[in-house]
Amino acid sequence: MKISIVGVGLLGGSFSLGLQSVEEGHHFIGVDINEDHCTKALELGIVHEICQLDEALAKSDLVVLATPVNVIKWQLPYCLDRLPSNSVLIDLGSTKATFNGHVENHPKRSRYVSCHPIAGTENSGPAEAFPGLLKNKMMIICDKDSSDEDALNLVLQKIKKLEMRLHFMEAKQHDRHIAYVSHLSHISSFALGLTVLDKEKIEKSIFAMAGSGFSSTVRLAKSSPDMWAPIFSHNADNISEALGAYIKQLQLFKEIIDKREEDKSRELMEHANDIRRVLMGLDR
Amino acid sequence: MKISIVGVGLLGGSFSLGLQSVEEGHHFIGVDINEDHCTKALELGIVHEICQLDEALAKSDLVVLATPVNVIKWQLPYCLDRLPSNSVLIDLGSTKATFNGHVENHPKRSRYVSCHPIAGTENSGPAEAFPGLLKNKMMIICDKDSSDEDALNLVLQKIKKLEMRLHFMEAKQHDRHIAYVSHLSHISSFALGLTVLDKEKIEKSIFAMAGSGFSSTVRLAKSSPDMWAPIFSHNADNISEALGAYIKQLQLFKEIIDKREEDKSRELMEHANDIRRVLMGLDR
Repeated sequence: MKISIVGVGLLGGSFSLGLQSVEEGHHFIGVDINEDHCTKALELGIVHEICQLDEALAKSDLVVLATPVNVIKWQLPYCLDRLPSNSVLIDLGSTKATFNGHVENHPKRSRYVSCHPIAGTENSGPAEAFPGLLKNKMMIICDKDSSDEDALNLVLQKIKKLEMRLHFMEAKQHDRHIAYVSHLSHISSFALGLTVLDKEKIEKSIFAMAGSGFSSTVRLAKSSPDMWAPIFSHNADNISEALGAYIKQLQLFKEIIDKREEDKSRELMEHANDIRRVLMGLDR
Repeated sequence: MKISIVGVGLLGGSFSLGLQSVEEGHHFIGVDINEDHCTKALELGIVHEICQLDEALAKSDLVVLATPVNVIKWQLPYCLDRLPSNSVLIDLGSTKATFNGHVENHPKRSRYVSCHPIAGTENSGPAEAFPGLLKNKMMIICDKDSSDEDALNLVLQKIKKLEMRLHFMEAKQHDRHIAYVSHLSHISSFALGLTVLDKEKIEKSIFAMAGSGFSSTVRLAKSSPDMWAPIFSHNADNISEALGAYIKQLQLFKEIIDKREEDKSRELMEHANDIRRVLMGLDR
């Protein structure tokens, strides 16, 4: 099978390496505007040749869009326009409702399967890709009834091969949920990084006493701005709601701490401890 | 040497197990109001006998206070009052200025060494203790000039044996810094947990799509309310300042996202990426 990876970064690269580790004989084609990434992807065996997008589309059985969401937004109709009629197009973007609405009435909509793998690290680029990134992770497929059965089945078969878990949902619901359990985490981390870096200007040695708790909460502040800025715009309404709710919780903590109301802060934290139940499910 | 561990939980227990793994022949005495913890600590070899506090104090060469900070606050003068004149008292609390001010003029102040190991996990209790918790971690010693040379040297020798790194600072500076690099991380995580748990009431399946980024930022919301509520009161002014600065950063993000100002959000995140430099230092 000829598979094009459009955007040979962490996610696209790991998709290719993961599939190569469980299925033989595929020919992978790389498309990327970043020439260094193209060279690196060839060198690491992520792809076997580099093409321009139009050429890649013309000869692919499966096309995987693993670019930032602002790029997917125009690539999606562009690629559907040019896709051979039996080929399949998927994207791996972190927002879904905008795209899906965008191609809702496209004559070839049914050749597209809307995917979001809940996987990634705070690093980016082909050199960070590794075969096991997707294994045991959740793949969300949105609006599956809009896809042709054979297109959906091809994607399901690949997901199974990659040993991913599977969850179907509606694109709008996806975007509402992901704002809370992914996008908000990233903003909380970016803002935490900024707050402490700001303080460092006055208190030079502040990081001498940072430990694993700090690292854990601030790790996502290393994430790529080019990837995240468009996500924030695409999912702005949902993120704004989540962020507003988060700010309210923090203001409540601040008020309680200002008043030294220990019983109330203990109570809030006891509620928060319920996250153990959730994390136990996640770490299973 | 006879060493009393007052509070046989994660930190006190790990201090004992860590020392036992590198030095032989010490006799460890446990003091705890939680009888289950006492039984568990004996069973796990964390301590060799259980005593009431007064009895433990009378026969110890080294006394380690590993209780929540509201308890350390009264235990510190109480223990100094009863400590044999050549013995040494340390605490492992996460705030420092309150205690140190509290015993500043105590006739036996110089037998006390004010310590804060930057180590811990989100778990608590003796069953969670392990010998390697303190290894390679930072030990902060505050106001070292207020301690006798022999008392300080005893503590330094133990720190070296435990293979910890060492940093001296003034108690007030300690509390200012730790508000930013530890206490704020915990509140950001508790508040994130609360926000998403609240949303779960309406959107049942929200956690189906939570991944490692979410786990990482919310992990600290599992922390013990009994330990953290008093810390927030003790260090209220510094935490309130840090929390205020954090809320401002989040409000800025919200404003930018509401206005879909992608360039500005990209710029904020690029600043935040500077945290790579810091985390590289921490993970070394």
